[in-house]
Amino acid sequence: MNLRKKHDQIISDAIKAIHDRGYYTPYPENPKAYNEDLANEAKRFIPMLMNNNFNELLQTNTTTEWIGTEVSPYLQTGIGIKYPKPELSKLLDLSKVAMSNWSTTDSDFRIGILVEMLEKIKNRFFDIAYATMHSTGQSFMMSFQASGPHSNDRALEAAVMGYLELNRFIHETDWVKPLGKFDLKIHKKWKAIPKGIGLAIGCSTFPVWNTVPAIFANLITGNTCIVKPHPKAILPIAIVIAEMQKVLHEHNLDVHAVQLAVDTLESPITKLLAENESIKIIDFTGGSEFGSYVESLQAKTVFTEKAGVNSIIIDSVNDIKAVAQNIAFSACLYSGQMCTAPQNIFIPSVGIKSNEVNLTFDETVSAILQAIQELTDNPKAGPATLGAIQTDATLRRIKDLHNDRNKILLASHPIKNEEFTDARTLSPVVIGIDAEDYEVYNKECFGPILFIIKTNNTTQSIEIAKKLVKEKGALTCSAYTTDLSTQQNIEEAMNEVFAPVSFNFTGAAFINSHAAFSDFHVTGGNAAGNASLTNSEFIAKRYVWVGNRYC
Amino acid sequence: MNLRKKHDQIISDAIKAIHDRGYYTPYPENPKAYNEDLANEAKRFIPMLMNNNFNELLQTNTTTEWIGTEVSPYLQTGIGIKYPKPELSKLLDLSKVAMSNWSTTDSDFRIGILVEMLEKIKNRFFDIAYATMHSTGQSFMMSFQASGPHSNDRALEAAVMGYLELNRFIHETDWVKPLGKFDLKIHKKWKAIPKGIGLAIGCSTFPVWNTVPAIFANLITGNTCIVKPHPKAILPIAIVIAEMQKVLHEHNLDVHAVQLAVDTLESPITKLLAENESIKIIDFTGGSEFGSYVESLQAKTVFTEKAGVNSIIIDSVNDIKAVAQNIAFSACLYSGQMCTAPQNIFIPSVGIKSNEVNLTFDETVSAILQAIQELTDNPKAGPATLGAIQTDATLRRIKDLHNDRNKILLASHPIKNEEFTDARTLSPVVIGIDAEDYEVYNKECFGPILFIIKTNNTTQSIEIAKKLVKEKGALTCSAYTTDLSTQQNIEEAMNEVFAPVSFNFTGAAFINSHAAFSDFHVTGGNAAGNASLTNSEFIAKRYVWVGNRYC
Repeated sequence: MNLRKKHDQIISDAIKAIHDRGYYTPYPENPKAYNEDLANEAKRFIPMLMNNNFNELLQTNTTTEWIGTEVSPYLQTGIGIKYPKPELSKLLDLSKVAMSNWSTTDSDFRIGILVEMLEKIKNRFFDIAYATMHSTGQSFMMSFQASGPHSNDRALEAAVMGYLELNRFIHETDWVKPLGKFDLKIHKKWKAIPKGIGLAIGCSTFPVWNTVPAIFANLITGNTCIVKPHPKAILPIAIVIAEMQKVLHEHNLDVHAVQLAVDTLESPITKLLAENESIKIIDFTGGSEFGSYVESLQAKTVFTEKAGVNSIIIDSVNDIKAVAQNIAFSACLYSGQMCTAPQNIFIPSVGIKSNEVNLTFDETVSAILQAIQELTDNPKAGPATLGAIQTDATLRRIKDLHNDRNKILLASHPIKNEEFTDARTLSPVVIGIDAEDYEVYNKECFGPILFIIKTNNTTQSIEIAKKLVKEKGALTCSAYTTDLSTQQNIEEAMNEVFAPVSFNFTGAAFINSHAAFSDFHVTGGNAAGNASLTNSEFIAKRYVWVGNRYC
Repeated sequence: MNLRKKHDQIISDAIKAIHDRGYYTPYPENPKAYNEDLANEAKRFIPMLMNNNFNELLQTNTTTEWIGTEVSPYLQTGIGIKYPKPELSKLLDLSKVAMSNWSTTDSDFRIGILVEMLEKIKNRFFDIAYATMHSTGQSFMMSFQASGPHSNDRALEAAVMGYLELNRFIHETDWVKPLGKFDLKIHKKWKAIPKGIGLAIGCSTFPVWNTVPAIFANLITGNTCIVKPHPKAILPIAIVIAEMQKVLHEHNLDVHAVQLAVDTLESPITKLLAENESIKIIDFTGGSEFGSYVESLQAKTVFTEKAGVNSIIIDSVNDIKAVAQNIAFSACLYSGQMCTAPQNIFIPSVGIKSNEVNLTFDETVSAILQAIQELTDNPKAGPATLGAIQTDATLRRIKDLHNDRNKILLASHPIKNEEFTDARTLSPVVIGIDAEDYEVYNKECFGPILFIIKTNNTTQSIEIAKKLVKEKGALTCSAYTTDLSTQQNIEEAMNEVFAPVSFNFTGAAFINSHAAFSDFHVTGGNAAGNASLTNSEFIAKRYVWVGNRYC
């Protein structure tokens, strides 16, 4: 059986998409495109699994203990699903053994296995969606899309980028150098030697999307991978890993090429793993402090996505209503708990031009507040957009902001969710602030928190937004201007600090979304992280080219 | 004028060579292939320049002071050539200004300029050769080849690898996502934003070969470059930079895109530059201690080639004479002052098989010693192979080894050079040692120093050679075996620690030589350095992909 051949169409389409950077997905994002039976069955998945052990993993690295402390933000109760507690030395030993085999397979074989895995994961999209809902608090639709098709896209992108990198050069040749009287002939072979066991450290909000690129990048380059999910968001990635292990098993491969390593907040194992000599590659998504610790580890290849402070610069618009609605949606989507969500909105004190009409600062702000209110108060769109708040810490952060020191333009309030009456929800708090109060808004305030910052003019808006990226990093920057030279100024300023800019997004275009095969997620050039999905570096640093020569 | 077009043949041949990894050079290594007049003129170049100022640079970063402390290893006197002393703040400011322009040119334009530069440098190959002789101590032939055609090859390889990386993806597209009722259209552009000013820190032995890949990699990716040569090997790279500046000037480009920054051993400026915030990229070739310091600098992209300890494992051979001659040449070439030169020769105490005949340990050693003596005593080949010793420190190191503690198998002695009677020369010292005296041979002993290490068997030879790479790094490993399974064992062991192996090199195949477009120089995977010439990483880490989106 030639796995590569079986999946040739997907692979060659992906190769083309990576070059052309146009829209591409083999995994439609609309749930209706998938088997309705699976959709219905999945509704019973969480209720059936609750307070039970997750038995699907094939790995044998475990102690006899079962652990798990996930809490559903929709139910606000522990879901009681338990996972095998790993024994660290066994985990690492099994990964080493698996690697001795996996690393000797060739990239044609590996890409076939990896696409096969994605095809199998596809059958679990609905299960993964419910698992994502009840761990992250994402709405059903976002859970389905982000942890399902969009994750598969990103995983495929990483795998195919790896496949391309590994096949950029010939792997064997007869090198012949003419020396006049005779030719010097040397036979040469090149091998991409994998660096070693990879550790993928997951986050609590996007447990699949942010983890699979690392797993697939490690596997395509011949490395094995240990996945250490956030203790509060295990189930979605556990299903993914179980499906991957099943495919390995079906092909008589060592299932320990990818392993799940679960821990709890009380007994964390991340540092123990990260600092272990056998771990050579670390992919991390999460807070800046821990991210910087990971980056500081010696003799490791480290890829990070940390926090950033994302800005919106409003200079001039064509249609303030469309702009306000777009901003409202971007800020409300998953209650601002996306790394790509905006936090700081810069508006000049003199107001802005909207379709040649002058809008005062207050009118501009009002339009945004109104759009947010309309969205959050919409009984259908509100809860479906906002989802739920992942942790109590975010809840507390928002409550703490409602104090006398802050000028609350829009207070946060719980959003009624008809389906989940116990859901932990909050609408965004919007705080008005002057540009000079930099110390207040110059940090990531995770969750549905917006600062509307009054600046002297767009020049100052740009200046501060740039400074913020330089100091704190950013994953996105959104800008509204109808003036071409202002657009160029914004682009130059933000690009100089390696932040991408999205201009004049309205309608269905949202800054939150970074599409596989097209958008690089994180540039890797500022404090928001050192890695970029998916550039050459994300792949090439996972292995070493070694050339042997034979006379 | 379309520069890219003018050089299309060279560029497309190089692209093909990088993929095919076969032999390729647009710059023949035989001096006879070049203009005889240039060869004759060049003989007067050093005598005319001696005790004069080097006036060819077009840069204006300088103070009024002229400095220079190069000493010719062939004359053992200072050559008295002075270079403008740079004013650091001016140097950095000018680099920044140059970058604001250079970074906006496109890769088609840049690759054309860079190939044009190489074509101009070609006309100076003979000058560069004499400059290399009288700073590094390399023989004329090696000076010509290493600093001339081979350097140009490596520079071209880096430039074309950069060109390929920058053009792997489309830079602009209309992204169209079907959303059922309508299509979402977003216009997207991607820019490879250069990271900033690059600093290339040169070494004293290969001032051109080890520096031009960094310069050309920086320039093709839109960065500018400041070259800080070793204070004892300035002239060769000064000529290269002067030619590059002339090409920039001819095309009305800012000559400060590449600048020379000379210092002296007494007043070094390397750390001042390396630690300056404006320097974003550092390429370093040299000792491990300083290399590790450079690697430790925060917020810099660092590429290093440091020292390593290279081993030869002798297990069994077809023709001991051919093997001994090959080893002798590799060890004597430029008096062992190459980063690729062998240092430790592992031979089993029971001896080896040579063409089905058993050779004792002593017979094997004798063959090697004899081959070294024959080469060093040959009045023509000896001095032409060994060249001269670059520094007094190397001289002292070798003298110090002649003591009672060491078992001297072959004593070092000066080599008579008819042309340069004052040349600083030394034949290799060969020391016999037992495997267990690991602490003696487990460090780089720079210069013509060989240890012949008696091991229990080839298994132990492999084991120690591997341990050495793991602890100290290596750029090459040479192995002689006629047994396929032993060959596989050696290959696996050494590759696991990311050292390449050259098997059974005899005749004109030498481990010292790493050919552009084919051999990766340094793997980047062990302590000998973190960079590899020229893999994707060597290019991709110099810029950041930033994607802007437009509605």
